[in-house]
Amino acid sequence: MKASQYEAVESSKLSPPPRSNRGISILDLIFRGIALCATLAAAVAMATSEQQLPFFTRFLKFDAQYDDFPTFSFFVLVNALACGYFAFSIPLSILNIARKGAQRSRTILIILDSVMLGLLTSAASATASILYLAHSGSGSANWLAVCQQFNDFCHQASGSLIGSFGAVVILILLIIIQGTALARRH
Amino acid sequence: MKASQYEAVESSKLSPPPRSNRGISILDLIFRGIALCATLAAAVAMATSEQQLPFFTRFLKFDAQYDDFPTFSFFVLVNALACGYFAFSIPLSILNIARKGAQRSRTILIILDSVMLGLLTSAASATASILYLAHSGSGSANWLAVCQQFNDFCHQASGSLIGSFGAVVILILLIIIQGTALARRH
Repeated sequence: MKASQYEAVESSKLSPPPRSNRGISILDLIFRGIALCATLAAAVAMATSEQQLPFFTRFLKFDAQYDDFPTFSFFVLVNALACGYFAFSIPLSILNIARKGAQRSRTILIILDSVMLGLLTSAASATASILYLAHSGSGSANWLAVCQQFNDFCHQASGSLIGSFGAVVILILLIIIQGTALARRH
Repeated sequence: MKASQYEAVESSKLSPPPRSNRGISILDLIFRGIALCATLAAAVAMATSEQQLPFFTRFLKFDAQYDDFPTFSFFVLVNALACGYFAFSIPLSILNIARKGAQRSRTILIILDSVMLGLLTSAASATASILYLAHSGSGSANWLAVCQQFNDFCHQASGSLIGSFGAVVILILLIIIQGTALARRH
C-alpha cells in the first residue's frame, strides 16, 4: 500500500514530457490516402459493372446493372460517401502532423471514423451476402444462380468488394492508432 | 480504520476526488440485460422460422427454413454469440458497480463491445438485404419475390431483425457511456 502511494506521488510529480506523435500522424495520412483510393475504386468498379446478354426476346432484354439491386446502389452510395470523407479528413490529418497536441481534432476523427466503419461494414456485408446468393443460388427459394449467365457482371461486382473490405480494415487500424496517440497524451 | 481514513485523506489531497460512476454502471447493467433478451429473441425467432407449403410434387417439397440461406445461419450464429457474450459480461458489469475505479475491466468491455457491434451490424444488415430481396424480388435477375409464398416465414424472419438492430443500438449506447465513465476518471 505504502509503496503504491509513493509511486503515485512520484508519477504525479514527474509527469513525463509529452511524446511526439509525428510518426503516428504520418502513418495516419498514408492510411487515409490508401483508403481513399480503395473506396474510390470500389465505387467506380460497382457503378460501371454492367452486362448485356447477347440474346433477347421481343419483350425482355437481359441486362444486369448495379441499380437493379437496391443493395448495390447502397454500396455505391456508401463507398462514394467514404471516399468524400477521406478526401475531407486528409487536410485534418496533415494539420495533426504540423501541430503537436491535436486532441480535439483527433477525437472528432475517431468519432467520424467509427461512423464510417459502421456504414462501410454494413454495406460491404450486405453486398457480399447478395453476391453469395447470386453465385450459388438457393434451391428451396427457387432463386437461380444468376452469375452463371451474368458472369462478367458478377466478377466485377465481387472485385469491388475487395476495395470496400480493405477500407474497413484500414479504418479499424486508423481508430486504433488514433486512440494510441490520444492515450499517449495522458 | 485509521489507516484507511488517512489514505483517503491523502488521495484526496493528491488528486481530485474520483466522481462516482455508480449511475452509469447501473445503466450499463440494465442495457446489457435488455440486449441479452433482444439477441436471444432474435436468434430463437430466426432459428424457429419454418414454413411448409400445403402442396408438393413427387420430387419437391416446398419447405423454407433458416438454414437454407447461409446468411440466415450466420445471423443465428452471431446473435447466439452476442447473447452468450452479454451473459458473460453481466457479472463484469455488476463488479463495476461494486468497485469504484474499474478502469481495466471497462476498457476490456469497450473493446469486446466494439467487436460484437461489428459482428452484429454485418449480420443484421446482410440479413436485411436478403429479406428485402425476398420481399420485392428482382426482375432483371429473374429472382422471385418468395415472400408471396412463404409469407409466415418471411414475417418471422423480418421480426427477428428488430431484436438484432435493437441490440446494435444498445451496443452503441453502451460504448458511449463506458467511454464517458472512463473519461471522467482523468
